Amino acid sequence: MAVNLSVPMASELKPVLGLDLGYAKANIKKEDRKDLLVMRLAPSATVAGVFTKNRFCAAPVQICKSNLEKTHAEGKKICALMVNTGNANAGTGEAGYRDAVETSAALAKLLGCNPEQVLPFSTGVILEPLPVDKILAGLPVAVADLKADNWLNAAEAIMTTDTIPKAASRTLVIDGKTVTITGMCKGSGMIKPNMATMLGFMATDAAIPRDVLDAMLRSAVEKSFNCITVDGDTSTNDSLILIATGKVDIGITDTQSVNYRKMRDAVTGLAQELSQKIVRDGEGASKFITIVVEEGRSEEECRQIAYSVAQSPLVKTAFFASDPNLGRILAAIGYAGIEDLDVDKLNLYLDDVWVAKNGGRNPAYLEEDGQRVMKKKEILVRITLARGNASSTVWTCDLSHDYVSINADYRS
Amino acid sequence: MAVNLSVPMASELKPVLGLDLGYAKANIKKEDRKDLLVMRLAPSATVAGVFTKNRFCAAPVQICKSNLEKTHAEGKKICALMVNTGNANAGTGEAGYRDAVETSAALAKLLGCNPEQVLPFSTGVILEPLPVDKILAGLPVAVADLKADNWLNAAEAIMTTDTIPKAASRTLVIDGKTVTITGMCKGSGMIKPNMATMLGFMATDAAIPRDVLDAMLRSAVEKSFNCITVDGDTSTNDSLILIATGKVDIGITDTQSVNYRKMRDAVTGLAQELSQKIVRDGEGASKFITIVVEEGRSEEECRQIAYSVAQSPLVKTAFFASDPNLGRILAAIGYAGIEDLDVDKLNLYLDDVWVAKNGGRNPAYLEEDGQRVMKKKEILVRITLARGNASSTVWTCDLSHDYVSINADYRS
Repeated sequence: MAVNLSVPMASELKPVLGLDLGYAKANIKKEDRKDLLVMRLAPSATVAGVFTKNRFCAAPVQICKSNLEKTHAEGKKICALMVNTGNANAGTGEAGYRDAVETSAALAKLLGCNPEQVLPFSTGVILEPLPVDKILAGLPVAVADLKADNWLNAAEAIMTTDTIPKAASRTLVIDGKTVTITGMCKGSGMIKPNMATMLGFMATDAAIPRDVLDAMLRSAVEKSFNCITVDGDTSTNDSLILIATGKVDIGITDTQSVNYRKMRDAVTGLAQELSQKIVRDGEGASKFITIVVEEGRSEEECRQIAYSVAQSPLVKTAFFASDPNLGRILAAIGYAGIEDLDVDKLNLYLDDVWVAKNGGRNPAYLEEDGQRVMKKKEILVRITLARGNASSTVWTCDLSHDYVSINADYRS
Repeated sequence: MAVNLSVPMASELKPVLGLDLGYAKANIKKEDRKDLLVMRLAPSATVAGVFTKNRFCAAPVQICKSNLEKTHAEGKKICALMVNTGNANAGTGEAGYRDAVETSAALAKLLGCNPEQVLPFSTGVILEPLPVDKILAGLPVAVADLKADNWLNAAEAIMTTDTIPKAASRTLVIDGKTVTITGMCKGSGMIKPNMATMLGFMATDAAIPRDVLDAMLRSAVEKSFNCITVDGDTSTNDSLILIATGKVDIGITDTQSVNYRKMRDAVTGLAQELSQKIVRDGEGASKFITIVVEEGRSEEECRQIAYSVAQSPLVKTAFFASDPNLGRILAAIGYAGIEDLDVDKLNLYLDDVWVAKNGGRNPAYLEEDGQRVMKKKEILVRITLARGNASSTVWTCDLSHDYVSINADYRS
């Protein structure tokens, strides 16, 4: 029951020159399901990545980080990415690390590159050994399928509890040249990214130096994947990758140019669209909630308050029930940990309805107005703090019976 | 469906000499329900309190704090406590403050004391005006009911979504004198106390100076009410009160004596029993979970990890489903925010079952052993960090369909 989210048409997802995708059904956890993906990059491509801050970060995440560093230091390129679903290869200790190295090496051999030029990604159940043989058997199938016009299959191949594949494209014209950016992501539970979501991949055909690409990705993630939460659980496998295949030269050499800003804004927009798709398809989601906190002293404190509201089970169940039990929002603001917050200056709005004024119930507030807004599928919660000029936005969903059902049944 | 929790017998709840309790059915939110409580203290009584750290702390909480300070400074005594359910008088601004003052003054008049000698408490829906007239009408009824042997009625009168009244007693003999301690509490949702639970009241007939009583309460709360969570939501109204009616002199004058420690340990034990009752009656709870984190560098980091596990919706739904999806526990440890945690040294046990060894799956771990423990109603999760000697314990419950139902329906 994803909120205002449908399967994209294959034709909407523009191929990115210099990036081919191929999938296999490797039977990793379930039969007859797309569960293994290979992405092959042109030698001109640069790659940037941000990863989970969970201390139990999965073996593939550790390898991704180290391979990105190593190839960068040695002036080499990343030549391929591989993704399996059904198993997170996390909490698997040294054996998990060896398994990830072994499968990466197998793909490197198939593609004629070195193992450290491969980035591995895994998503699924934690604490279970990676089914290496199934992946080794699936890799040649995925490699045989490699083609540029394959994003929808790829988006399907990285799904776990997602109900809908998530991908989007945009094109922009810079200096008369058409640039394409296409991305996909997966994830609907264990979602409170801290650097990135469970798995997200974006690619452009523009030529962008590695360091500049890195800055662009970090800027984009702060306004997208780092602003969402489904259940407050930060995954062990969160990874977000930005690839520039280097096929279209628009003269980007640093982060100061107008063209950099154009590309950064487009990448940020795509990242926002993708990250919001994750919330719309959040486990059990029936509502899409935007929480805006304004007039704070810093973005940090605004985000802290927004997350406190977004993660409150009581607030989330009230949204599920369409019950304007809005005092729960005040309580969540109050325990957000802002020590010197003056609640007597605080205002709360639900869409166009002014609910709380100067910290108390707005005398003009009518229950029926709150009720009207709570029944909508997309709701804006706006909180003003009257203590500064900073603001922050967080996107989340409600907490429903289906969330409990999905997570009580996940492994069965 | 409270976990191993039943209604106490009235005879189990020992009267505390110097403390009378009386209730009324004031129709505050529902008809024919005990919803108003008055407690009258002997002139010899001392009172200590700890309160919510929520910035949106309710009007009665503000008044309690200020009246405790004021009477202490002026050498006066608290003479009564009053509690209403059905309305939290929080998020109600200046009007809420005036309402709490007015109802306190009415009780003071009935009892022949000053308004600042009354401590008011409210619990229920936030952001709605206090029904002052109903409370004013109920107070004389409650006062007429005042008697020492009335704890079970009192425990019923402070319930909201609680399914079972929560109270307990203990007696101990100190220097040949029998001392009684009786307490009660309420709360089952919006429970992650930060200083105290929603409402808790403990009383002893021992004579204990106010400052010493304060130290005793703060020590007890750190090992009881500050170690529980149901849903991670810190209430606007959390208050925990310890009363010493001064009827039994056991020579406590400071915090150094043996008798102080005996009393402190007994009060701590009672506070633990009461706080655990809140978890056992947690909204929708079907399991009672004890999370022990050991071998940490500080109690603080152990508690941080324990709470991260205790508050993870994914961990809580796995307990609900009796599904040994234990990787979710590792993920929650990993995102607890301990930057330098070496997960390769970490062990995880479920009761007697060694699940994770040195950060990965214990080779000897069998799914059927995990399954066996997960089916129990009371489960011990033990985590060892191998980096110090500190430890911490947190008590919590699972996240069930009923939690969502209860909170989706709360106001209706």
